[in-house]
Amino acid sequence: MSNNNSPLAIVLASGGMDSCVTAAIASQNHRLGLMHVQYGQLTQQRELRAFCDIADFYRVPDSLRMVTSIEHLRRIGGSALTDDTIAVEDARAGGSGIPATYVPFRNANLLCMATSWAEVIGAHRIFIGAVQEDSSGYPDCRREFYQAFNRLIEAGTRPETHIEVVTPIIHLSKGQIVRKGVDLGAPLQFTWSCYRAEEEACGTCDSCMLRLKGFREAGVDDPIRYA
Amino acid sequence: MSNNNSPLAIVLASGGMDSCVTAAIASQNHRLGLMHVQYGQLTQQRELRAFCDIADFYRVPDSLRMVTSIEHLRRIGGSALTDDTIAVEDARAGGSGIPATYVPFRNANLLCMATSWAEVIGAHRIFIGAVQEDSSGYPDCRREFYQAFNRLIEAGTRPETHIEVVTPIIHLSKGQIVRKGVDLGAPLQFTWSCYRAEEEACGTCDSCMLRLKGFREAGVDDPIRYA
Repeated sequence: MSNNNSPLAIVLASGGMDSCVTAAIASQNHRLGLMHVQYGQLTQQRELRAFCDIADFYRVPDSLRMVTSIEHLRRIGGSALTDDTIAVEDARAGGSGIPATYVPFRNANLLCMATSWAEVIGAHRIFIGAVQEDSSGYPDCRREFYQAFNRLIEAGTRPETHIEVVTPIIHLSKGQIVRKGVDLGAPLQFTWSCYRAEEEACGTCDSCMLRLKGFREAGVDDPIRYA
Repeated sequence: MSNNNSPLAIVLASGGMDSCVTAAIASQNHRLGLMHVQYGQLTQQRELRAFCDIADFYRVPDSLRMVTSIEHLRRIGGSALTDDTIAVEDARAGGSGIPATYVPFRNANLLCMATSWAEVIGAHRIFIGAVQEDSSGYPDCRREFYQAFNRLIEAGTRPETHIEVVTPIIHLSKGQIVRKGVDLGAPLQFTWSCYRAEEEACGTCDSCMLRLKGFREAGVDDPIRYA
């Protein structure tokens, strides 16, 4: 476990399962700064509650919690997550193509915010729970995107600044993520994944299906409630 | 001049001189979408007025104006532009080092926002009025930063999306920028550059000094008022 002398790392924490497991991994060797961004997604109140529960679990001090809100992704629209007129589809059978829940360039927006914060507070690593293979097929979840982002940081920050984005679960399957979370004692009972609902998870949207698949593969019961 | 069949380009328009001249350049061959971001900078009300005047001048329809506000850069702090406790210095003599007005990774944040918008509205170019040589020495004004950003867009957007960030004035001197603006009929009288004040420009901050140097080199009178 980390202690007061451990280096500081920022974790982008949505309140979902992947970022919770990512926080668990980061906490092994780092003090945590947790960043949570509301961008007008349908379930943002529920996700904020999940974030706070997870931050409390890891005893993150207020000075290292950055909860912030951006309006432009909702106003820009183009995604079922932020536009009420675009339906959140049921999970796709084949997994090809880019789903309606893709928020254009969202992870780049979030990583820029985290990089600004990292440069000011002196964090040298930014953890993000992106998942490539066993994911929704978003272009900003691919390894090459994160490699390009690290080159961008190198080019666009102070010469003495060295910040690296790390993606510790990018090549794990959902089952491996659940297993890793259980092994590390991550508080999966606090996490929220459903794109549609805030009281009981729908169990049928892309995000619920991927989560349920993960628990099934890991042979573990999902501790949250489904409709 | 562009017409209704011209391709659509987004211009990041702060309300300052450089982005105004950049809009003038873009307007030669493109319909304009103008994006303006308030990030808690001291003079943001004045800059918004300048933006609106410039957008009116170029007859940009409301549907192609995106005025939006982000709070995280102010809350993150670390810059004299967004933190009341850090002084806006007078212009530096030597021009070495990175000044206190540097907002960490600001241009990356702005370009991500513009990229999200471009992907939704189908714009293929994003113009930004970054200036490398004759500038304040910000790391995110260097050509290599924009090259890295274009690679990031390629890696992080839909495969069918092709968006390019272009920096038409990056190698111009401030004098050349003023001259270009005058030649293209850019409404420089509406622009605002001062980091400190909103009524009359201070004439002594970095940004005022660079602006005044530009008008002097171009042999043109600056149409705005100074204290």
